[in-house]
Amino acid sequence: MELLEVIKGRRAVRKYKPTPIKDEDLNAILEAARWAPSWRNSQCWRFILVRDPEIRARLAETLPETNLALPAIEEQAPLVIVACAELGKSGYSRKGQRATNKGEWWYMFDTALALQNMVLMAHSLGLGTVHVGRFDAAKAAQILELPENIVVVEMIPLGYAAEQPEVKSRKELSEIVFHDKYGHE
Amino acid sequence: MELLEVIKGRRAVRKYKPTPIKDEDLNAILEAARWAPSWRNSQCWRFILVRDPEIRARLAETLPETNLALPAIEEQAPLVIVACAELGKSGYSRKGQRATNKGEWWYMFDTALALQNMVLMAHSLGLGTVHVGRFDAAKAAQILELPENIVVVEMIPLGYAAEQPEVKSRKELSEIVFHDKYGHE
Repeated sequence: MELLEVIKGRRAVRKYKPTPIKDEDLNAILEAARWAPSWRNSQCWRFILVRDPEIRARLAETLPETNLALPAIEEQAPLVIVACAELGKSGYSRKGQRATNKGEWWYMFDTALALQNMVLMAHSLGLGTVHVGRFDAAKAAQILELPENIVVVEMIPLGYAAEQPEVKSRKELSEIVFHDKYGHE
Repeated sequence: MELLEVIKGRRAVRKYKPTPIKDEDLNAILEAARWAPSWRNSQCWRFILVRDPEIRARLAETLPETNLALPAIEEQAPLVIVACAELGKSGYSRKGQRATNKGEWWYMFDTALALQNMVLMAHSLGLGTVHVGRFDAAKAAQILELPENIVVVEMIPLGYAAEQPEVKSRKELSEIVFHDKYGHE
């Protein structure tokens, strides 16, 4: 598949088959994340692969009941990847000082770079994913026994799609791209 | 190129040739960003393509003098893409309330998803990029005449590489991947 085809063909998948993921595919997906760029190569991302049914059930309880990805997190997808980040690395100078006006939040940026590699790699291997960001991340951190300097960013179910999600429309380039100054077409 | 090859082959390029970028390549790179996923499909990202020499010189002044990408921003790369984000969309509920414990900062996440698509697409077309995050973003916002609800996230020079950057090593998978709970190998 050509890269632009992979990028445009990826969809948010919320219904999954129980079919297990091949080890080599999972490895390629994790490798894709591992090779993302990051602030001063600090690689703040951490990934917890959750298969344990009890932990999955507890994680699902951190989602709003209305979230359509809840069954996938709870038990439907063969695997849930919880993306976490180490604080105090991304966005900080070598001397440990905050180096931007984004405070400590650069970890959101770097973790997303790795996760985009991950979802693209998954799609290119025929596997579905969806970004799940709306849940009680502090409670999820307790369930997963995170140390104090690590936070939960999001969850991604991973598996073969049991649905064919429709294409969601996008803004036109003229709405999001400007020249030299903001608003100049 | 296979996707994993694109991902692993991408490098941070800080020295550029003046060779112009083909319109069709630039268009593919922007399309790649446009098709990224985002919080409730809110697409908070905005991109300013900066070629104007005076604006480029002023943007370069917002970087620390020690930043190795400064000449690329100032004039060397044929183009600088300034990634911006609209506030109050990503991470918010339909009713406009903050929906996570990351406050408004989910825009950092969504913008990074689009930017990772962008740098991968650029690399697959033989073009170099580097994430430049350390600069005075508030001053850059003034220079680019951003409205109050838009912030600058980062800058990316784009062009053909005039150097062959070395591979930076990465943590082993065993350092960043755990099973069921944090720290479990």
